[in-house]
Amino acid sequence: MITIDKSGCKPFANEQQINSYMDKALKGFDTLESGSGAGNDFIGWNHLPSTITKEVMDEYKDVVSRWQAMNIDTVVVIGIGGSYLGAKAAISALGHNFTAKLSNKGMHILFAGSNMSEDYLAELTDVIEDRNTACVVISKSGTTTEPAVAFRIVKQYIEQKYGMEESAERIVAVTDRNRGALKSLATAQGYTTFVIEDNIGGRYSVLTPVGLLAIALAGYDIDAMVRGAQEAEKVCSERSESNPSIQYAALRNMLYDAGYKTEILVNYNPRLLYVSEWWKQLFGESEGKDGKGIFPASVTNTTDLHSMGQYIQEGERTLFETVLHVASCRREMLIPFDKDNLDNLNYLAGRRVEECNEAAMNATIIAHIDGGVPQIKVEIPSMDEFNLGWLFYFFEKACGISGYVLGVNPFNQPGVEAYKKNMFALLGKPGYEELAAELKKRL
Amino acid sequence: MITIDKSGCKPFANEQQINSYMDKALKGFDTLESGSGAGNDFIGWNHLPSTITKEVMDEYKDVVSRWQAMNIDTVVVIGIGGSYLGAKAAISALGHNFTAKLSNKGMHILFAGSNMSEDYLAELTDVIEDRNTACVVISKSGTTTEPAVAFRIVKQYIEQKYGMEESAERIVAVTDRNRGALKSLATAQGYTTFVIEDNIGGRYSVLTPVGLLAIALAGYDIDAMVRGAQEAEKVCSERSESNPSIQYAALRNMLYDAGYKTEILVNYNPRLLYVSEWWKQLFGESEGKDGKGIFPASVTNTTDLHSMGQYIQEGERTLFETVLHVASCRREMLIPFDKDNLDNLNYLAGRRVEECNEAAMNATIIAHIDGGVPQIKVEIPSMDEFNLGWLFYFFEKACGISGYVLGVNPFNQPGVEAYKKNMFALLGKPGYEELAAELKKRL
Repeated sequence: MITIDKSGCKPFANEQQINSYMDKALKGFDTLESGSGAGNDFIGWNHLPSTITKEVMDEYKDVVSRWQAMNIDTVVVIGIGGSYLGAKAAISALGHNFTAKLSNKGMHILFAGSNMSEDYLAELTDVIEDRNTACVVISKSGTTTEPAVAFRIVKQYIEQKYGMEESAERIVAVTDRNRGALKSLATAQGYTTFVIEDNIGGRYSVLTPVGLLAIALAGYDIDAMVRGAQEAEKVCSERSESNPSIQYAALRNMLYDAGYKTEILVNYNPRLLYVSEWWKQLFGESEGKDGKGIFPASVTNTTDLHSMGQYIQEGERTLFETVLHVASCRREMLIPFDKDNLDNLNYLAGRRVEECNEAAMNATIIAHIDGGVPQIKVEIPSMDEFNLGWLFYFFEKACGISGYVLGVNPFNQPGVEAYKKNMFALLGKPGYEELAAELKKRL
Repeated sequence: MITIDKSGCKPFANEQQINSYMDKALKGFDTLESGSGAGNDFIGWNHLPSTITKEVMDEYKDVVSRWQAMNIDTVVVIGIGGSYLGAKAAISALGHNFTAKLSNKGMHILFAGSNMSEDYLAELTDVIEDRNTACVVISKSGTTTEPAVAFRIVKQYIEQKYGMEESAERIVAVTDRNRGALKSLATAQGYTTFVIEDNIGGRYSVLTPVGLLAIALAGYDIDAMVRGAQEAEKVCSERSESNPSIQYAALRNMLYDAGYKTEILVNYNPRLLYVSEWWKQLFGESEGKDGKGIFPASVTNTTDLHSMGQYIQEGERTLFETVLHVASCRREMLIPFDKDNLDNLNYLAGRRVEECNEAAMNATIIAHIDGGVPQIKVEIPSMDEFNLGWLFYFFEKACGISGYVLGVNPFNQPGVEAYKKNMFALLGKPGYEELAAELKKRL
């Protein structure tokens, strides 16, 4: 079970302030649970975990078995935003720090369609050319530019290499139930298809086929991940001040209103880099609207103590930190004894490296409190599938509640259309001629 | 030559405001060039490129040749902060997007000592166990905890595998000229040694052996990189309003004083992720002190348009962006024609992917200006060694100037000691007993 340690907020707020924000968060929780708030047609994720059936899980595993039987070693997963970050976060967090050697028996997952770098796509083809390749394409509409461009390239490659018939066995679509370009194509070609439900937005979709299929293909235990999310759903659906999602929503809104405008998600494990990126989308896209919202940033320590540490200790005092504390690591590595001891490290000889990492964390929390940076700590027992499922659901729940406390619709993203319209116009897409003329004058 | 496009600031500032900050930046430039400012014992980097000799470059190449002759395929580079980020940034920016396949004929560089994750170090040993391994250890003192711990482990591994005598040929130290634990060890063991000069701080050290040796081992052309830096030194040392380092220092301080407290460095190429991390250290550590300084953040687009894009478009209006525009890519990949055109992308068929990437960039700049986010654009002809050397020097120069405009010492980092003292105390290091007792009460 994941818990919140709020002791690092106490030097910055009295009990009364904390209690008043707990009340606000309880109201936000009520709004979410009653389905009475803004964006309530997008809360399908809220009680999703408890509805996931063995049948659905078996469908994911069927794809894994089928592709294992075909000796597929590499899967290109095409998606962007919420159709990319959940799987990327999980596969990074559960995997090996060095891609040179995988820690699991799953297929090698390569992500594409999450950028429009020509070099990236060209280099992707370098990698897959001597691999036995399949593809999962994830897009509700099938027309989002980045994944659509990548899918044209990967689909053409697979069709040319394996022929049209076999390609249909090597491509799986995750898309809308009824509509859209990708749904039409999947039906026409006979691709295996999984559904993105209408009431779950991209950034809340990691526990749907959008995330789970790729995670299963990478060789991880999605049953354990779903069990973790189910546990989290139970704990985080209690109307109680001991509910960690209510606590987190309360504390961060309290700090925001007190002038701490930037939240830095802190981890002490480089594998968690993309958990932070997933979290940034979840909170940034849910709250950053109407001229408000906490700015989400992240650091990976102790690495970034040697880069961002100076700023956090002594820069503008508008920051707070949320520390992800993973209590145990997987491997064992002791600090060796050295008879010459020129580096003066023998006081650590025979002790575990992670003990130093933990001391660095505690040391930093105290130093940053003393420097004027409030601290929230999220206690995570270990970084495995169960706890990661727990963490994903916990953050989603906290985000829905937090958005309601802030007073925004946490489930829309009106601001992402602005650049897209401009882009279509600049690329000469039919129907955007007027805007194109206007923009070209400005450039 | 790298240039600055300030047109995206003009909707937010009039000519007079811009000119007044140009004057301030010219004064900052004078302070730096005259060596009369705070921290003036750490400006050895300022006119470094023009003093780099063929002899020094040959010493790096000698290590490369020697290790090539030994068929070394993997080099563990141990360092943290400025002893890590420069080489990491360069090797990522110049390399292949997928580590599965290298784009060059150099050695495979693995970084260590930049964190204290036990899993990371254990997994490092998984990778090197079947490789022909050498090590570059970079530390001025030799006692910084992270690199010292990693070096104990890697040194022991190399000594056990190859024997003491051969180990001396497989380890190179980059350290202080005269003093310190690593210098003593290197002398005792007979390691090849390169010097970290006293007047160059870590974050300004990429063009010294700290950065160049690892970049050369990775197979990149350090002569071209140094030529780029030399060109930049010439251009950026002119006392002129057309000097891009003066322009960038002026614009960012103008925006900061106008309430834009967070600067987001934006790239459109995933290979530049660690250039952003290097930049964050450079500016964050130089300016984040005395309760002030721009908060440095970064995004990699178009990926992050689908995560941070909503916040940037419509969140708190305290952001500005600095866009790294790399004008050309290396590879060619065209968007295929599709006879069914279900995704409606045929209007792009036959065009280059990078053309879409560029359109996305221009579209986003306009959308963000319209949303209230000032834009600075850094125009970079291509991402090769020459231009990367140019970029490194340009940012260093701009940072020194910018820090003086802000009114801080851009060359110290007093805030990084706070957590270290706490950590030594918590780890039971001799001499920290009193602090340890105090901290244990607080935990």
